[in-house]
Amino acid sequence: MTTSVRVSTNQISQDYDVLIEPGAIDRIRALLPDAHTYAIITDTNVARLYAEKIRKQLTNAAVLTFEAGEANKNAETWQKLSDGLINHNAGRDTCIIAVGGGVTGDLAGFVAATYMRGVPVVQVPTTLLAMIDASIGGKTGIDIDGGKNLIGAFHQPHAVIIDPDVLRTLPKHELRYGLAEAIKHGAIADAAYLQWIADSMQSIDALESNAIMHLIQRSVEIKAQFVSADVQEAGARAALNFGHTIAHALERVTRYAMPHGEAVACGMVVEILSAEAAGVTEAGSGAKLVHALEGAALPAALPKGTNSSEVMAAMSTDKKARAGAVRYAIPARLGEFSADTEGNWTRPMPDDVVKGVLARLSIK
Amino acid sequence: MTTSVRVSTNQISQDYDVLIEPGAIDRIRALLPDAHTYAIITDTNVARLYAEKIRKQLTNAAVLTFEAGEANKNAETWQKLSDGLINHNAGRDTCIIAVGGGVTGDLAGFVAATYMRGVPVVQVPTTLLAMIDASIGGKTGIDIDGGKNLIGAFHQPHAVIIDPDVLRTLPKHELRYGLAEAIKHGAIADAAYLQWIADSMQSIDALESNAIMHLIQRSVEIKAQFVSADVQEAGARAALNFGHTIAHALERVTRYAMPHGEAVACGMVVEILSAEAAGVTEAGSGAKLVHALEGAALPAALPKGTNSSEVMAAMSTDKKARAGAVRYAIPARLGEFSADTEGNWTRPMPDDVVKGVLARLSIK
Repeated sequence: MTTSVRVSTNQISQDYDVLIEPGAIDRIRALLPDAHTYAIITDTNVARLYAEKIRKQLTNAAVLTFEAGEANKNAETWQKLSDGLINHNAGRDTCIIAVGGGVTGDLAGFVAATYMRGVPVVQVPTTLLAMIDASIGGKTGIDIDGGKNLIGAFHQPHAVIIDPDVLRTLPKHELRYGLAEAIKHGAIADAAYLQWIADSMQSIDALESNAIMHLIQRSVEIKAQFVSADVQEAGARAALNFGHTIAHALERVTRYAMPHGEAVACGMVVEILSAEAAGVTEAGSGAKLVHALEGAALPAALPKGTNSSEVMAAMSTDKKARAGAVRYAIPARLGEFSADTEGNWTRPMPDDVVKGVLARLSIK
Repeated sequence: MTTSVRVSTNQISQDYDVLIEPGAIDRIRALLPDAHTYAIITDTNVARLYAEKIRKQLTNAAVLTFEAGEANKNAETWQKLSDGLINHNAGRDTCIIAVGGGVTGDLAGFVAATYMRGVPVVQVPTTLLAMIDASIGGKTGIDIDGGKNLIGAFHQPHAVIIDPDVLRTLPKHELRYGLAEAIKHGAIADAAYLQWIADSMQSIDALESNAIMHLIQRSVEIKAQFVSADVQEAGARAALNFGHTIAHALERVTRYAMPHGEAVACGMVVEILSAEAAGVTEAGSGAKLVHALEGAALPAALPKGTNSSEVMAAMSTDKKARAGAVRYAIPARLGEFSADTEGNWTRPMPDDVVKGVLARLSIK
């Protein structure tokens, strides 16, 4: 006496556009979806620059701010922002506008994912890193004591609106951190783009319009390509983690004193040189990557005093390692990323090879 | 100089089966998906009855319990359970098993929805109400000061496993609460089923196997039909809210002293009699509904001392009313539910008509 009922869950398409347009923030009203009310979520730094500019274009918008800094990407801030929505009388017909860097996007995205079981969010990234990476793909989350982003949800944005003009108010080092991810995009998907970045560093650094537009567009295209292929991060999206296995370990051993962009730069170098040594990646790839990173003033060596044994230990407790050996996402050659013959998008590497490279890149 | 990149988000199908099988818990290992580890989430009452029975069938399972009661369906419990998963070293390859009533399903479902951006959950409902209602449809959430279920997510279960044998350990009043929803299913989708419930009350009350199997199966089919048609609750799923606009107001004015099943029973009667008076629903529908409810020993009148003005006031602050007038989900005749000519699945009704019915059903 067994019976079974099938529940089908045909989802409505959640495809969305990433719009890249200088001056977009000045006319954002025309770019936002219709909504009964809006809630602009931003941190105290970005609020000063853009919150009022956006709010005054809308008839019923609240501004909810939180203290800037990754330390505030926590459950307490998430609850306060959710309470703020209630006080604003926000309903399912409210649209959240996340204005800021990666911390704001993650936090506001998680608020949107969980308020009344999900309300729309438009991401308005204001750092290069957020524009080409965090704002696309629907990853949202907060940090808890147990680890970063351990609590979160996939919640696709309704749209991403990128105004490259805001990069003019961005500190130079933030631009460099973004370039680490752009270089990664070239390394995993487009060798010509990687070369173009290396060749165009002066124009990029001077924020020349054509160069910045191309940089953002090509990186967004690559990020979108991997995300579209693998929305729930079960396969090909792993390519975007190139450099990140080492990067997360570096961030942990430096107690997050090392900026993510620098950790990714270092991480890519360590991983690709290890992969060369292990015969996984074409020889000479590491040198080309280092050239591009150095052009962007990004580090190709470990921070002074880093202990390679500590880095190895930090990796073995990383969440990606839970099922066993530490795994790495590594391109077979610059601009090419594919699964191995068994369909795995990540691979283990011998610990002694990785440790050797770490030791070689340590500044004594 | 505007450019736009499309991000496609083709979702993997998340269809799932609701299995109904007496004794399913005794052989649950064979029914669960493969997973690296399991985490059984349950409350202190249900833990005593079923946690060990399930745990001992699995090689790597933790039991995470929380104090029984709706009052604990909050952010604090959610955080504790998430911490419990971290301590159990749970990863994305962990399967959560939610064993209990609606509170457990909502809470464990929300933990699953937000742990590492989503891990699979199998719902094992142990009350009739949870079997035929809460466990199906992917609604998860917690209560906050601002209101019930204001924080939550849609997170479809990997499967729902219903063991009707557990109803033998269920207090009789819990069975009645479940019958309120079963009667609702008949009222919105299947008049013959409604009649069958009224005619079969003795067999149901005696937990006769054939009657219970039919009851669960037909209600699950109806719930699944509405949920499948409208996964994100944008349209037809509104039918499932029949009786609930009044029910939520009754729960609020009684400060949740009135059990949900009784509130839904009352709510359906008030709403259908109002709809008859307003000419929306076929005359005589209310009398048939009252007959079925009374057969299940469910109330067709308001709790003693209920003030109809308070109920009206509670509705106007209900979240469904945010956009303006209070709206109701009401069948046109018993067993039939459809959108109006403008495509609306809910409709307003004159306040004085509703208030008149409330006053008439009040026990002085």
